[in-house]
Amino acid sequence: MTNLILTTFDWVPETPRGYVRDIRVRWALEEAGLPYRVNSIPFRDRGAEHFSHQPFGQVPWLTDGDISIFESGAMLLHLGERSELLMPVNPHSRSEVKQWLFAAIASVEAASQPWSFFKFSGDTAETSMRAFIDGFLEARLKRMEAVLAAREWLAGTFSVADILMADVLRLVDSFDGLTGFPACRDYVARATARPSFAKAHADQLAHFAAAD
Amino acid sequence: MTNLILTTFDWVPETPRGYVRDIRVRWALEEAGLPYRVNSIPFRDRGAEHFSHQPFGQVPWLTDGDISIFESGAMLLHLGERSELLMPVNPHSRSEVKQWLFAAIASVEAASQPWSFFKFSGDTAETSMRAFIDGFLEARLKRMEAVLAAREWLAGTFSVADILMADVLRLVDSFDGLTGFPACRDYVARATARPSFAKAHADQLAHFAAAD
Repeated sequence: MTNLILTTFDWVPETPRGYVRDIRVRWALEEAGLPYRVNSIPFRDRGAEHFSHQPFGQVPWLTDGDISIFESGAMLLHLGERSELLMPVNPHSRSEVKQWLFAAIASVEAASQPWSFFKFSGDTAETSMRAFIDGFLEARLKRMEAVLAAREWLAGTFSVADILMADVLRLVDSFDGLTGFPACRDYVARATARPSFAKAHADQLAHFAAAD
Repeated sequence: MTNLILTTFDWVPETPRGYVRDIRVRWALEEAGLPYRVNSIPFRDRGAEHFSHQPFGQVPWLTDGDISIFESGAMLLHLGERSELLMPVNPHSRSEVKQWLFAAIASVEAASQPWSFFKFSGDTAETSMRAFIDGFLEARLKRMEAVLAAREWLAGTFSVADILMADVLRLVDSFDGLTGFPACRDYVARATARPSFAKAHADQLAHFAAAD
């Protein structure tokens, strides 16, 4: 019996096969020799059950007993915490592994993803790029709107996850990108109303102003 | 005396002020009431010292004693592990915080970042978008090339960070995007030569083929 269950789509079109992100988790599980089984969820009809595990309607997600985790980076971190083969035990190395997990996503994939989408679509004409970028953001905001309409903070109480998410959404808001997403806007307002944000913001402005 | 030191640029142009990512870390530090000091690094001349802490030549980074961390997500996770005010202690909540840290970066900022760049640049003409996207990726690959030319794996030994980074770069490679980046290409080849990758890849292909 294993309590690690990886859920992916039951089917995907030909092109993404071999690149669906469940491969990252399969790879780590194989590397660590952890027993697991793979579960399927319909590609075509994504229901409430799907969104309850993966709020963006994507795959994969991993359950470990009664804990359910989405985001490949978070699943890899979780498995790293379960196996020394995936994350060394000494504090320096652990810190390095964690920073590079974030770097892979934030500094490299953030740059490769828009580029890859155009490659996947056969280098679509320039004129459709802006539509693609606008559509990409809108799709994600729609899902965040559903998440934030139902909760005050992402993980029950205010946490570093709210600091990061609110700061990401705050920049979108500054360009009026949250029009039509009132729960997202309220969330940004709620987070940035905290005295700690006001202090941090004032300190940053003062820091750069001091160098002028 | 504090051993938490946050390093940011000495100066930035007017537009990004209030949005430089050190604000995420300042916010968390203020929220937790952790003592810290802010250190400056030149914006204009980014030297070897800078790249040794932040391989993409960006800011911020955080040192905690003899541990140096870049990536705002990784810094927030580190601070979350230091303070219950930033990450609750029970395992379910901790897991939720971690997945949402990754979600903020991978599912939301990945979509908002290209959109925001165009907003920052005053909605540049369509025709420059492809150049922007190509340039964004190239800049990141240049830096990864320098990192990977000097080491076999990102954090000393093979880890989940390599699984994630290699999978990100593997997709770029599949579109011939690593031409001119031999260290990146060798890294992808080295990582994907592991039996665990071969097994994971074959299993994914078999999974989707079974549904055809």
